[in-house]
Amino acid sequence: MVERLSSNTTAQPFAGHGPRARGLGLGWGTLPPGPRNAITDVSGVRVGHRTLHQGDAIRTGVTAILPHGGNLFHQKVPAATQVLNGFGKSIGLMQVDELGQLETPILLTNTFGVAACAEALIRHAIQGEPRIGRDLSTVNPVVLECNDGYLNDIQAMAVTAEDAAAALAAAAAPAGDEMASGAVGAGTGMSCFGLKGGIGTASRQLLIDQAPFRLGALVLANFGNPGDLRLPDGRRVEPAAEAMPERGSVIVVLATDIPLEHRQLRRVAARAGTGIAWTGSFWGHGSGDIALAFSTAETLPHEAQATILPRRILAEERMDLVFRATAEATAEAVMDALAAAETTTGFRGHHRISLREVLARP
Amino acid sequence: MVERLSSNTTAQPFAGHGPRARGLGLGWGTLPPGPRNAITDVSGVRVGHRTLHQGDAIRTGVTAILPHGGNLFHQKVPAATQVLNGFGKSIGLMQVDELGQLETPILLTNTFGVAACAEALIRHAIQGEPRIGRDLSTVNPVVLECNDGYLNDIQAMAVTAEDAAAALAAAAAPAGDEMASGAVGAGTGMSCFGLKGGIGTASRQLLIDQAPFRLGALVLANFGNPGDLRLPDGRRVEPAAEAMPERGSVIVVLATDIPLEHRQLRRVAARAGTGIAWTGSFWGHGSGDIALAFSTAETLPHEAQATILPRRILAEERMDLVFRATAEATAEAVMDALAAAETTTGFRGHHRISLREVLARP
Amino acid sequence: MVERLSSNTTAQPFAGHGPRARGLGLGWGTLPPGPRNAITDVSGVRVGHRTLHQGDAIRTGVTAILPHGGNLFHQKVPAATQVLNGFGKSIGLMQVDELGQLETPILLTNTFGVAACAEALIRHAIQGEPRIGRDLSTVNPVVLECNDGYLNDIQAMAVTAEDAAAALAAAAAPAGDEMASGAVGAGTGMSCFGLKGGIGTASRQLLIDQAPFRLGALVLANFGNPGDLRLPDGRRVEPAAEAMPERGSVIVVLATDIPLEHRQLRRVAARAGTGIAWTGSFWGHGSGDIALAFSTAETLPHEAQATILPRRILAEERMDLVFRATAEATAEAVMDALAAAETTTGFRGHHRISLREVLARP
Amino acid sequence: MVERLSSNTTAQPFAGHGPRARGLGLGWGTLPPGPRNAITDVSGVRVGHRTLHQGDAIRTGVTAILPHGGNLFHQKVPAATQVLNGFGKSIGLMQVDELGQLETPILLTNTFGVAACAEALIRHAIQGEPRIGRDLSTVNPVVLECNDGYLNDIQAMAVTAEDAAAALAAAAAPAGDEMASGAVGAGTGMSCFGLKGGIGTASRQLLIDQAPFRLGALVLANFGNPGDLRLPDGRRVEPAAEAMPERGSVIVVLATDIPLEHRQLRRVAARAGTGIAWTGSFWGHGSGDIALAFSTAETLPHEAQATILPRRILAEERMDLVFRATAEATAEAVMDALAAAETTTGFRGHHRISLREVLARP
Repeated sequence: MVERLSSNTTAQPFAGHGPRARGLGLGWGTLPPGPRNAITDVSGVRVGHRTLHQGDAIRTGVTAILPHGGNLFHQKVPAATQVLNGFGKSIGLMQVDELGQLETPILLTNTFGVAACAEALIRHAIQGEPRIGRDLSTVNPVVLECNDGYLNDIQAMAVTAEDAAAALAAAAAPAGDEMASGAVGAGTGMSCFGLKGGIGTASRQLLIDQAPFRLGALVLANFGNPGDLRLPDGRRVEPAAEAMPERGSVIVVLATDIPLEHRQLRRVAARAGTGIAWTGSFWGHGSGDIALAFSTAETLPHEAQATILPRRILAEERMDLVFRATAEATAEAVMDALAAAETTTGFRGHHRISLREVLARP
Repeated sequence: MVERLSSNTTAQPFAGHGPRARGLGLGWGTLPPGPRNAITDVSGVRVGHRTLHQGDAIRTGVTAILPHGGNLFHQKVPAATQVLNGFGKSIGLMQVDELGQLETPILLTNTFGVAACAEALIRHAIQGEPRIGRDLSTVNPVVLECNDGYLNDIQAMAVTAEDAAAALAAAAAPAGDEMASGAVGAGTGMSCFGLKGGIGTASRQLLIDQAPFRLGALVLANFGNPGDLRLPDGRRVEPAAEAMPERGSVIVVLATDIPLEHRQLRRVAARAGTGIAWTGSFWGHGSGDIALAFSTAETLPHEAQATILPRRILAEERMDLVFRATAEATAEAVMDALAAAETTTGFRGHHRISLREVLARP
Repeated sequence: MVERLSSNTTAQPFAGHGPRARGLGLGWGTLPPGPRNAITDVSGVRVGHRTLHQGDAIRTGVTAILPHGGNLFHQKVPAATQVLNGFGKSIGLMQVDELGQLETPILLTNTFGVAACAEALIRHAIQGEPRIGRDLSTVNPVVLECNDGYLNDIQAMAVTAEDAAAALAAAAAPAGDEMASGAVGAGTGMSCFGLKGGIGTASRQLLIDQAPFRLGALVLANFGNPGDLRLPDGRRVEPAAEAMPERGSVIVVLATDIPLEHRQLRRVAARAGTGIAWTGSFWGHGSGDIALAFSTAETLPHEAQATILPRRILAEERMDLVFRATAEATAEAVMDALAAAETTTGFRGHHRISLREVLARP
Repeated sequence: MVERLSSNTTAQPFAGHGPRARGLGLGWGTLPPGPRNAITDVSGVRVGHRTLHQGDAIRTGVTAILPHGGNLFHQKVPAATQVLNGFGKSIGLMQVDELGQLETPILLTNTFGVAACAEALIRHAIQGEPRIGRDLSTVNPVVLECNDGYLNDIQAMAVTAEDAAAALAAAAAPAGDEMASGAVGAGTGMSCFGLKGGIGTASRQLLIDQAPFRLGALVLANFGNPGDLRLPDGRRVEPAAEAMPERGSVIVVLATDIPLEHRQLRRVAARAGTGIAWTGSFWGHGSGDIALAFSTAETLPHEAQATILPRRILAEERMDLVFRATAEATAEAVMDALAAAETTTGFRGHHRISLREVLARP
């Protein structure tokens, strides 16, 4: 039987999360983090996980990210994507960039769980607005994925639409103080630089002309060759991992309360690529490296009452600080995934050791 | 009960297909068509349909296109896409353009059938190669869609993975002389310029420096405002259709036996946009207009034995004739969908009249 | 000696312009044109030409388009581009799309005149703001081009920075009632569908929820194979022109007073491609087909005083009317170039007959 | 009077070059460099510089890169570009990506020298093939630029077409053993991370299934905020430089003898972005960060005699090593520019100290 656990806090039976990157001296950069050092520092953003364990073979799950607590179909948020390396099977990116908006929560899962998650998002949207596809247009589900096939029997297609719904429900429920990171939700079976990877997060506080803003990153870290990992102080970490072609991926979700138009969000999403590179990656051939950025500063109605809508955007020459925050939060979120993830054994006895164990060796 | 019919020929109980465009004087352009004037004129290309009818509300289906009869995962074909207007929910396009190749059949269906079809393609690929996702990388399912919500109760999510498998099986089975077009397969519930739309096809024969080649187009035509349709001779056709915002889409699949690299296939796919425009469209806001082009001239192995692979490509300055063939075949394929589709009544009593009926009026 | 004439009205010694498309029954579509049926119907937009004639060989020039009468470096306008076919040598497009803004006038010229025009725009900008490149950033000149090498000895590189400055000055001077179209300015030596091409323009008035807006197109029409031209009523026009590979191009500049963000302007610019296709083109291999759209509704400061800037944008679901206006104005502007251009003989005795002459034949 | 010096070796009166990165312990990564550790390790590739010094204000120049010693118009090379951040004024990129080929040498210069360099490339091409623009199509000059306005009075527009021709001639002349790097050619006035920047280069040797290949990078390094520089061992370097918004840029030119199609070259060019990020950059807002990659493995004729051309490409799953080589060579080329460049004082007394001086401090 598959053990299925929904969560949005650290109270979990699976040791999928643990210390934070900063606690291990793996903070990145110079800008100050937010109070939780998490994507949930951006007001309204919520995260929930559904973690699946079964026997030796199933190590997978779903992670849900809600830009806000309301109805996303009716209160869409400005969004944009960047494909750093398109060896991936995500769904929904095309419309995000055509219309510059996100109209469902974001789900993260394994490569073969995309269809189940997409179906769940459609049903979730119809539940919130029964006119979808009948009296109104259809809805664009956004699901991003990595291949956890090393630790998880991905052929089993263990993720169901119910799992996706459970992750969405966990995100929507009142959260505790901290979101879980590490080998949890979609991160359960992921690998990173030959170590145990997973979900990581970080945030930055920005003062732009004295006005305070926040930017947060959440990564699903499943990328990098053993030996390429570079810590913030320049150290290399080389685990004794099996040499094999990279079939990973990394997903970076960026949230901010800065008002940004689609073009600016695309520029921000591109800088996720620099944060990933800072950790030692060169965006490997087999890795689907995708970033999606959204702003919570304003929402866009599905049926606008007015012809002309007022908007606000950041003055373009202030973008540098936003770019720096993005690169720092992305790189630290990768460190966070590595710091929190526990050593895991899974499919076919494959084994991924935690970064903490490697660093603790004499 | 849903009536489900698989087919790859015109032998069908549902009057989903009928005369061809050229028979009605609706051929387009000057280049000669192939023997079937269909995408199946490109050697090896096969098409199959699964058509769903149920009561008053279900008018939908799946159409499968096989680039060749072999194992696509192991013999991938060069491919590229173009997003003319990205208001759509297709899956798989990103990887096609990163790697320049297609590794599954192409499925067409309704917007909410994408997840079921993606799942079916994954299972179909694993059936053909059980190492996928375990010893080999995962697989990239390609599913393109239009919203048939006017004639079909799209919320019912009637399309199943079994329907997708049936369309694949129909395509793989020995075909008759003709592929079916009109209100069949994914075209069952589609509308076009306020008329009944659906599946249409056309082909062109090209002599490039005396060497014979073929190019074929298959469209899922579900686009255009009533009154905007322009026939090859310049006539406008204005049906008495309900005025409503366009929530359609058009998918254009292009096949050719000309050896073309990814960049050239992208240039070809862009010309589908001119063929669509020739029929009177301006690529409406609400229409997800997508083109995908592939070449059958060469296949690409999943696991290359050699470091350097020999390829062939068309000399670039010969591209003009390929572009002309693409525009002509695309425009005529739209005419073909309109010519073949029967008048249909569906969800909520919505009604789409056939072009033939309109043209037959005094 | 080269005869050089600057102009922004029809008062010219060279018979480079003449009747308008609509006067010849070549209007396109259903939306009403603005009072001048020209890009100058968009308030503030100005156009000036510099026309060069010399002996038998020089038939070329420069056309300048000013989005407004102020200092563009300090009052930039939102802008976006679309590359329909990138076989062209334009300069400045990359930055327009990164920053979503235009900070110089737009110059049109022949392919080998781009460098001279770029230099002139830099000097023009420095003249208006001497701190450019010293105390402030540099400036991004935008020059778009077509190859007029059939009628003009393009190797002579006859266009100088002074010619470009003269076109800019002509645009800035108080204009007459009409802007000149046809074989004038950059259009002097251009060919279109085997006929004499050149500069053409058209505009549309839009009522969006009762609010009046305008959209105008200006084309530099130098594209299309003889025999492919399709008039608004569906007629084909086949001049007795020399068969040769297309080495043309078409540039479409779109102006509107509708407030649109960069992403929306990119969507609008894409629809120029449908207008070009409506006239019979399939965006030939050798033709650099480029569109640039800008909005005059708001300006963007070079040095923003505020952190967050207020903006306005059109509600997305109102875009369809803007797309229709774009396609219609673009197609009619091509007709306008053909209608206005006089029969011209140039380099090597090459000859392009006017559309009017062809249509007047019995 | 402007002192103008052409060179392709280190024998120069201006102290524009010096030690190499590797000699200072600033080599990057694990793959072995080629014999010169320079882009000229790729057989046939040649580099030449034209350096301009005048009084206190002019510190600028031109650098020319020849993919091979033959006529590039008739023997084009496969090429592709990537825009990491499009705040730049380069010319020629659009056509490179439409046609997948480069048909002129590449010139690097300052932002306001682009027009002069483009004109020089056109004249250079016509000199080599007088039918250009008359009996044949025109030619696409490729010029990439950075803003050297801090050390150089860019308003003076000191670079002339003659300077560009001199750089081309220097590249074409028989070269010495080493190409010059540092404050030479286009690098003369450039700044990098608040230090003196300029031209840098590096190369890698690759064994792909035992077959030897080479990949080389040349950078024009003019990017990065003071304090952000990160050396290969993780050290940060913070010069006492004036805080000011970044108005820099970095150009990365990549050459390889591996046969790659356009799509693959685009993937390679993207990895220049990771190499730039490794050095501490987040691709600043004001920095035009552009990469161009070409392959010397095959040439493409201007007028193909055959319809179908044979090509060779690297098997896609071997790309990872090419990506790693690209990131390493790019990062080390930036180190090389910093290592070679001498402390420079220029316009308005602005001063950039060399990295060597900073590292030599106790």
